[in-house]
Amino acid sequence: MIKTPYLLFLGDAPDQLSAKVAQGIRDWRPENAVGQFRMEGCEADVGLPDMSLEEARAAGAKTLVIGVANRGGVINQDWKKVLVTALEGGFDLASGLHNLLRNERDLAAVAQATGRDLHDVRVPEVRYPIASGRKRSGRRVLTVGTDCSMGKMYTSLSLEREMRARGMSCTFRATGQTGILITGEGVPLDAVVADFMSGSIEWLTPENNAEHWDIVEGQGSLYHLSYSGVTLALIHGSQPDALVLCHEPTREHVRGMPGYALPGLEELKELALKLARIANPDCAAIGFSINTHKMTEAGALSYLAELESRFGLPACDPCRFGAEALVDVLEAMT
Amino acid sequence: MIKTPYLLFLGDAPDQLSAKVAQGIRDWRPENAVGQFRMEGCEADVGLPDMSLEEARAAGAKTLVIGVANRGGVINQDWKKVLVTALEGGFDLASGLHNLLRNERDLAAVAQATGRDLHDVRVPEVRYPIASGRKRSGRRVLTVGTDCSMGKMYTSLSLEREMRARGMSCTFRATGQTGILITGEGVPLDAVVADFMSGSIEWLTPENNAEHWDIVEGQGSLYHLSYSGVTLALIHGSQPDALVLCHEPTREHVRGMPGYALPGLEELKELALKLARIANPDCAAIGFSINTHKMTEAGALSYLAELESRFGLPACDPCRFGAEALVDVLEAMT
Repeated sequence: MIKTPYLLFLGDAPDQLSAKVAQGIRDWRPENAVGQFRMEGCEADVGLPDMSLEEARAAGAKTLVIGVANRGGVINQDWKKVLVTALEGGFDLASGLHNLLRNERDLAAVAQATGRDLHDVRVPEVRYPIASGRKRSGRRVLTVGTDCSMGKMYTSLSLEREMRARGMSCTFRATGQTGILITGEGVPLDAVVADFMSGSIEWLTPENNAEHWDIVEGQGSLYHLSYSGVTLALIHGSQPDALVLCHEPTREHVRGMPGYALPGLEELKELALKLARIANPDCAAIGFSINTHKMTEAGALSYLAELESRFGLPACDPCRFGAEALVDVLEAMT
Repeated sequence: MIKTPYLLFLGDAPDQLSAKVAQGIRDWRPENAVGQFRMEGCEADVGLPDMSLEEARAAGAKTLVIGVANRGGVINQDWKKVLVTALEGGFDLASGLHNLLRNERDLAAVAQATGRDLHDVRVPEVRYPIASGRKRSGRRVLTVGTDCSMGKMYTSLSLEREMRARGMSCTFRATGQTGILITGEGVPLDAVVADFMSGSIEWLTPENNAEHWDIVEGQGSLYHLSYSGVTLALIHGSQPDALVLCHEPTREHVRGMPGYALPGLEELKELALKLARIANPDCAAIGFSINTHKMTEAGALSYLAELESRFGLPACDPCRFGAEALVDVLEAMT
């Protein structure tokens, strides 16, 4: 578990997009971040107060989170200076970069000398069990999609926000690097060893009160040949009561695979339910989360209305129009 | 790749069953083993000549393969003496034990000093790619089952034997520890990191001549909540042209999960094909491999006949009655 609140390190981010981890934290857990730290030449701004390391410490920050992608996969010397000073000043460090903090000798040495923690959230820090298949109390909703990278994390976080606003008992369960940095905990599922994938998700979504909802962040897609096994492990490890079906209507083919068309939503619904019902015969598909960012507002609204009438289920774009209709269904199930 | 031929180490095996890795090598690659090495008190015998280390070296053996499960997960001192002497005598060592040879300090030190290799086949030794989804030339047949541990490896090896007997071009592709020790190579899929599972199977089953068959050893089951993700990665990584559906009719519930019934064969056929056709729309289920070892001969034969008439597909118990009818279909597809 990563200590909060954070100071968000934006480094020398060349543009706003490269700071999307910081932006995610700012959007979904603003209470977890006291400010942002920007170096000379930084072109990103997530709208938090600019702070020095000293100012952030005084404001209570405990961890410096690397909220920016690094260029060429290298932690450069300018970054290093800041990171070393942060460790010396009492900060832990947290990162989702591919190249690990712990493998940087200077950082590892300073962390050890100062007794600070280096959190590389790409690496599992828990010995997960093999899945038992045992039914747990409490309820679980999982996002599944026609493809990768179409908004499953944002959908899950939107559900959580709306459920909390209604006073429902719920927890967002992160299964990827960004989600883990946003919330401070979770399972980096793509880095878990095959035999323990499903067990890691059982571990992440334990027994709970009957009315509590775990909102499990989906990964990959049953239709993406590279990651479908990860998706199925999520479905069978979380034993969902409810599935939210995610789609981006303007996407032309499966991510990175021009030869593969996306499935239709009927097809996704049928296949995901069939697989989920192996674990939980009562699982239901409760509605759609549609990423309409490439559509006009009128086009998006008419697409959503068409889906609702075709399936008799709510269809939302949570980022654009809110997730109320999906939460209505979850609330009625509680 | 493990150097052949082997000397099979049976140690102090308390019974025949504990030597099943050695038995598998003896059954399926007798040409890979010059003899067996048994210690005092060994109660297993795989029917190969008993040899000392010196005799086996003289007969050409290059690797001492641990063909027996160890008691309590410990490599004891009696074993150690033999293993150290083997390394000093010029043998590599190979093992599928959970506790790794490389983690035994004395073995690691002697191996380094003598320049011998320690093969722990539970640990991937390759940096596998992320799956590309690209279609490869050559043909692939995969075994899938209603549950784990019901004969997918033996089915695959039976297919290979029959196909070779007919002069067909084919390769058994091992995906588990025993299969890897039998053939000397393969992918230990249960130990591969999630993101690379499907890619490891693409790596294992590369482009080949149009008439060549890869016979891919199945793992887990779509219906086993602990391992279903591994099974789907195999289906999507191998892009099979043909599936052989495996079942054990006398099994009462999914292995280790009393609450979960096995699916019917109609259900397995439909689900496995639906998933396989995401990768290869032309994939066909070509028949059944049934583990009838708990049935009478008459009961087994009538069960197989009933399946054949119900599905219009061949149904065999390869270990009991041969795999000819399945290979007839594969040969007709070539």
